This record gives sequence, structure tokens and C-alpha cells, in this order.
Amino acid sequence: MKTKLLTIILSCFFAFNYAQNDETVLKTIYSTSLTNGMSYEWLDHLSNSIGGRLSGSKNAELAVQYTKAELEKLGLDKVWLQPVMVPKWERGEKEMAYLSTSGEIKKVNICALGGSIATPEEGITAKVIEVSNFEDLAALGEEKIKGKIVFYNRPMQADLISTFSAYGGCVNQRYAGAMEAGKYGAVGVIVRSMNLRQDDYPHTGSMSYGDLPVNQRIPSAAISTNDSDVLSEALKQNQNLEFYFKQSCQQFEDVQSYNVIGEITGSEFPNEYIIVGGHLDSWDLGDGAHDDGAGVVQSMDVLRLLKESRIKPKRSIRVVLFMNEENGLRGATEYARVAKEKNENHIFALESDAGGFTPRGFSFATNDTNFNQVLGWKTLFKPYLIHYFEKGGSGADVGPLKSETNVVAGLRPDSQRYFDHHHAANDTFEHVNKRELELGAATMASLVFLFDKYGVNPVPESTNIKD
Amino acid sequence: MKTKLLTIILSCFFAFNYAQNDETVLKTIYSTSLTNGMSYEWLDHLSNSIGGRLSGSKNAELAVQYTKAELEKLGLDKVWLQPVMVPKWERGEKEMAYLSTSGEIKKVNICALGGSIATPEEGITAKVIEVSNFEDLAALGEEKIKGKIVFYNRPMQADLISTFSAYGGCVNQRYAGAMEAGKYGAVGVIVRSMNLRQDDYPHTGSMSYGDLPVNQRIPSAAISTNDSDVLSEALKQNQNLEFYFKQSCQQFEDVQSYNVIGEITGSEFPNEYIIVGGHLDSWDLGDGAHDDGAGVVQSMDVLRLLKESRIKPKRSIRVVLFMNEENGLRGATEYARVAKEKNENHIFALESDAGGFTPRGFSFATNDTNFNQVLGWKTLFKPYLIHYFEKGGSGADVGPLKSETNVVAGLRPDSQRYFDHHHAANDTFEHVNKRELELGAATMASLVFLFDKYGVNPVPESTNIKD
Repeated sequence: MKTKLLTIILSCFFAFNYAQNDETVLKTIYSTSLTNGMSYEWLDHLSNSIGGRLSGSKNAELAVQYTKAELEKLGLDKVWLQPVMVPKWERGEKEMAYLSTSGEIKKVNICALGGSIATPEEGITAKVIEVSNFEDLAALGEEKIKGKIVFYNRPMQADLISTFSAYGGCVNQRYAGAMEAGKYGAVGVIVRSMNLRQDDYPHTGSMSYGDLPVNQRIPSAAISTNDSDVLSEALKQNQNLEFYFKQSCQQFEDVQSYNVIGEITGSEFPNEYIIVGGHLDSWDLGDGAHDDGAGVVQSMDVLRLLKESRIKPKRSIRVVLFMNEENGLRGATEYARVAKEKNENHIFALESDAGGFTPRGFSFATNDTNFNQVLGWKTLFKPYLIHYFEKGGSGADVGPLKSETNVVAGLRPDSQRYFDHHHAANDTFEHVNKRELELGAATMASLVFLFDKYGVNPVPESTNIKD
Repeated sequence: MKTKLLTIILSCFFAFNYAQNDETVLKTIYSTSLTNGMSYEWLDHLSNSIGGRLSGSKNAELAVQYTKAELEKLGLDKVWLQPVMVPKWERGEKEMAYLSTSGEIKKVNICALGGSIATPEEGITAKVIEVSNFEDLAALGEEKIKGKIVFYNRPMQADLISTFSAYGGCVNQRYAGAMEAGKYGAVGVIVRSMNLRQDDYPHTGSMSYGDLPVNQRIPSAAISTNDSDVLSEALKQNQNLEFYFKQSCQQFEDVQSYNVIGEITGSEFPNEYIIVGGHLDSWDLGDGAHDDGAGVVQSMDVLRLLKESRIKPKRSIRVVLFMNEENGLRGATEYARVAKEKNENHIFALESDAGGFTPRGFSFATNDTNFNQVLGWKTLFKPYLIHYFEKGGSGADVGPLKSETNVVAGLRPDSQRYFDHHHAANDTFEHVNKRELELGAATMASLVFLFDKYGVNPVPESTNIKD
């Protein structure tokens, strides 16, 4: 009985002691990030000295060189480039569009969607048919669509609290809008920008023609939310109005590019990998500060913050700057392929790809055992107002690393402003707040520290003995 | 036994039913705010058509008229103006300042602090002594301070998560800096702006001379964070550099102004009052969009959202737009005086005066019984990512209403960006995000709904029978 009591007392003591240590470490990480972080300075360079970093572009190449050089300054154990072939699409000249009704011409703001074909050099002029979804297309049929421009105008749902849910409810218009409308003989597609705000910025993003034969492929563009309303209103007045647009974008051969990787090799379990990453490529209209310059610099700072906080990881910690998330996911696919080939055991992978806004928590894709462990850490994050620990998706780049026993997760910053900037010309450095960005880096580093210290449960849930 | 079981089942049913109803009501309130809110439109007018609303100014008068007229459109039971005399201070001509060292002149950005006296018409030129706090003044003594300009340069502490805590640790330099330095014969005071960001905006705010005799009162101004660093660096090079500044601000006689009040009279307990408010006055440099135009329009929208959601309050719900929070608190003092005189039982008072950013929760000043009731509502707010329910301060305007049995509270939005704008020329409408503002209004309306429905415990904690 006495021994049992002693054991309990000692366990309590050690548990308390551990918890206290973790508290202290998190405090150091957060303080270091807020007073001596590098995220903001790095982002300034990526955004203002390099700029938009579309896969295959000169800027993407510069970003590879720059981030590799900066990682090399940190005194990591290894820094290297992982080759990957990426698509190369160029926007060409600035797009032009207007609508003409009763002899009046009204210019509107559009931009080509990523992957779209160009219009003929003289542009396209056609009547417009407004729809909300693919069911509308089917109901209208080829007779009413053929020869026209299809205008998808389903807005993001404003009453959803997560703006990513609102995005998810709309993005098929952008991604598959041309593929679907092309089947009915449409000559072009105009899509309402995925933006919850009323403004003049068109928002680009990836689209696909799927298996559509080349002769059925039609150019597709995004139109600003303000001009979507203008167009919709004008159509109510005159359904025979004519819409003109011109774009000269072009798809080239794939080109050589790279994922940028840095590693602190683990002292006890070097073949257990923890990775933290964002994507180095961005769209071309803005400078990609939120999407995903923020995730890149935060991920780089995670390794730096661990070093600055004198944490010597037991497991190998990698920063992975993925190339080509936006229009191909080639970098993530290649990283996962090589990891599998080398039989690298990735126990935890964390992505930041939701903007450099105040962090609210994480979304975890994992089994119950690992998730319950994470929930036990929740109180450690309370002083930093990090409260969101939910099961859910992770991130496009780390998703392919998911296994039955590991944890893949995504940082979840406040999402309210994200789609004001997403894929648009106003995704720029001045819309990132230094402290919000730094809090994100600290939040990620803290979680990486805990996974390094406590590991994950290596036993698949399915083999557990049930009561 | 059967009766007991039936009672339990029925209780569970009603508890479940109540909870379900509350969930439904909150969903309606949030959806209405995000799809059909008025906060943003009202704020646009207050900010862009009226502008900065310093107490006693023409703009403050226009804001009184505008908000009263808008409240009258809402079909409330009563709308009225509550007279209050307020101080009137004017900035006058734009301030000017430079430092000169080794024949070179460097212009710096300053602004007079609210309540400061002017410099002589020709300005003040003097040597500068940099200090961090009042202890430094005491250590230096009159000999080293007399005839000089005291430069308070203690920065906000960046590693505090709550920027309000960082503000609290610095603001005595601004408020009492001139009063303290004047005692040692200083001729002027320059204070580092209360801003966590490095930029060129000087941030004004209230200051006081306390009981200092008129002949010891000296002009005081804020200097931007960038120029604080410039000045500090220049002083390291040359402690004899000369600083020049000129300001022509002036204090006038008190003038007549008003609190603006609207009320939905309670159907069951009309003499139990719930109030929600912000302050109608602002500083003069920006348009006061965050401080506190946001709180004003959110408070107005609370009553509107209740009506739009077809909630008929049992208790009387008032919106109170307080005049003169910034430099006198006369409106709040008068409201509390009249409430006491009329023996109005204010069971709950809520203020929004921390910017129109994403709401995170509330800080409550109340006893344990009432606080525990509030904690029971926490899960209702989880879908809206509202998680912060802590005991603490409330707000300057509702503070005077605190009693032993009631609840006074403050909305707590994300604080990271607040001091980038606070009291500066960049506190403007374009820095308010529509959704963030609307989420705040919905969060306030939801809490008001719950307090109206469930009331507070009317028994003072001190009279409780202890076990």
C-alpha cells in the first residue's frame, strides 16, 4: 500500500514537472517568435523582392534559391533540393472584357483562370447565359447554351462561419465550369470570383478540362464580385447583351523545379520524421504573401525557433517547401513518393496554407488514440488563445503522407479575411500583420515540439483489442 | 418512483428542448448579421460621411443626430438623447517637429496628446533626455532635466499575447508623462506612440496635468515608433542634439452634448435593464472606425438583430451610445448617475470598445454564481469559434454600472491589430473587415438574448449561506 502511494505521489510529481517544463518551453517559443522571429523579414523578401511565384516561372526559381540560402544560414544538419517537374502556364497580356448593351460599353474586371486556354486573338463576343450550377446547365440543355458564354454566378455562402466551407461550396464552378459548359457547346466561361467581399478584384485559381476533347475546350475567366453583380443586373434588363473578353494565356512544356528541404536530424529516433511545410509557389496576380508565403516562412521559422529555444529534437524535424501546390501538386506527390521509396516513417506532418492570420488551432487527420493525446495538450495552448483542436482535413501538400498510425494536420488561422485576398492582386505583404504571422509560427513550433517529445502511438487502431 | 422517473425524463426533455431552442436562436442571429446586418453600412457613414468625432466637435454633434435618426427607423419603443456637458479640446494646426544634429535637420512625425497645452507660437527648441519611466526621472533629478524635453521611450512589450496588457504597461508615460516631468522643470514631453508596429503614425490619446500648477504645465506630444527609434539612435550619437516642436492645441469651455439611447421595453420585467453600448466620440486623427465606431454600430445592430430574429425581450434592452469616453468619461458618468437616481435595475451591461475584429469572447466582471451561469452557455457559442469566457475587466463606459449582483462585461475581439490603428490617422473604415464586424454584433446579440431569457441571480453572493 505504501509503495502504491509512493508511486502515485511520484507519478503526480513527474506529471506536474513535465507539464511545467512544457509550459516553460512554449513560453520560450512564443516569446522568441514575437520578439526575435524571422518570418516577417523573410516574407518581406519573398513578397516584395521576388513577388508572385507561379510554378515554372523565373520568380519560382528565385524563391527556391532564396529559401535554400536562408535555410543554409540556420545551421541545420542538411539542406537540399528535391527535383520535380512542374507545369508551366503563363497569363500573357492583361485580359480585357466588357459588356455592351443598347450601344453602351461597360468595362469589367476579369482574369484568366489558371490552366485555361486563350481566346482567339480578336477575343470572343457572345451572348451570356447566367447559371448557378451544373444542374442549371443540364436543365437548359445544348439548345440554349450553344454559342454562348456561360456565366456561373453562385456566390460564397456568407452565413457559414468557416470561409473555407463557403469556398468548398462554390469552387466547382471555377474548377470544372469550362469542362461542363464545353459539353453543351458554350464558347467561353465567366465565373464569379470566390470572394466574400464586394470589390473589383478578379480571383484566379486552377481549372481543368478533364478528358474533354481539345476541340471542346473553351477559355474561362474569373470576374470580380462587383462586376458579377453588374453583369447579372444587366442581364435582367437585357438578356441579349453581348459580352466580350480576350485573354492570351498559354500552357508550355513542363519545366524542372524543386521542393526545398531542410532537416535537423533526430538525436534518438532519426528515422522518425516530423515535417512542417507550406507551398513555395503562388498565383501570379499578387505577391502570394498569404497564399502561401506565410506558410513558407512560418515553416522555416519553426526549425529556427526550435534551435533558438535550445531544443534538441529526438526525432528528425524537416521543413519542406513544396513546389506547385496551386496547379498540379507535383511537389507534394514527389515528396510522398520518395518518402515511401526510402521507407521514411513520417509520424507527424503539419501544413500552414490558410493565410498568415491569427492562429486559432489545428485540424487533425488521425486516429482516436493520437487525437486524444493532442487533446491532452490543449491546456498548454490556452495562454496563447489557441483553442481549436478538431478532427478534419489537413492540407493538400501533407495529405499524401497520411497513414494509419501517423498524424497529419493543418494550422487553422482565423479565416474571415482569407478570401478577400486569395488568388487575387491584393494578396500582398501589407495585408499580413507581423504579430499574427509570428503567433502562427510559434503555434506550429509548439506543436512540433510536443510531437517530437511524446511521439505518436505506433500501433494501428484496427489492431487494438476491443473490450 | 415512477413519478420521479417521469420528472427526470420531462426535465431532460425540457432541458434538451431549451438548449435546442437557444441553438436555433443563435443560428438565426448569426445568419441575420452575416447576410442582412446593418453594422457595416452604418460604420461607412459614421467613418466616411462624418469622420473623427472628438467630444464637443461639430462631427460629434452630427454623429449624435445620425445615430438617433437611424435608431428611430428601427421601430424601438423609445429613442432619446441624454444631455451631458463635455470638454472641448482642439488640435489646431498640424504639429511640426524636427531634430537637428551637426547642422542636419530631420523631420519627425508627432501629434499633440489630447488635453495638452500648446507650445509658444514660435515652438520649443531644447535638448532631449531619454527615459523609460518615472523612476528614471527621479534618478536623474531636476538638475539633469530642467530646461530639457523629456522623451519617454518605453516600448509596448511584444511578447504579451494580449496587446491590451502591453498597452496597460506603457500608457502611464502618455497619461502622466507631462505631469511628472513638469515637476522637474522639463519644458516639454515627447512620448513613444503606443503602437506595437514600426511605422510613421503618431498615436494621440488622453493626458492629464493632475493638480500641477498652471506654470508647471508643459506641452506633450506623441512621436511615431519609427521616429522614436530615429531619435533614440541620434541621441546615442549626440546627446546634445536639439529637438524642435510646435503645436497649437487649445482647451475651450465645456459644451453641451448627448448620450444617444434606444430601448425595447421588456414585456415581463420592464424595470430590469440590459444595456449594450460603445462610445460615440473618437479621437480626431482618423475616422474612429475601430475606436469606437465599431462598438457603436454593433450595439445598434444588437437591438435590430433581436427584432429581425423576432425575439420579444422579457427585460428592457437598451443601446447606449456614450459620449466622451476618450477624454472625460462624462457620458458614462451621467448615464450611471441617472440610472441610480431613477433606481433602474441594470442586471447586465455589455460594451464593445476593443475594435471591430473577429470576436473571441467576453471578459466578465461579476460574482461566481453569475459567472458559472455564463460558463454554462459556452457550448452554445462553440460553432461560432467564440471560446474566451474569463473573469476580468468590462469597459470604461459600463464599469460605473457594476453592482454586487449584476454582470458587466466587455466584448473581446482578437487584439493583435488593434494598436496598429488605435488613436492614429490610420484608424479608418478600410481597416475594418465586414464579416469580422458582423460576427461581433451577432456575438453580442446572442449574449444579450441569453441574459434576457435567463436573467441573473438577484441575491448578493455575500448573503449566501455557506456550507
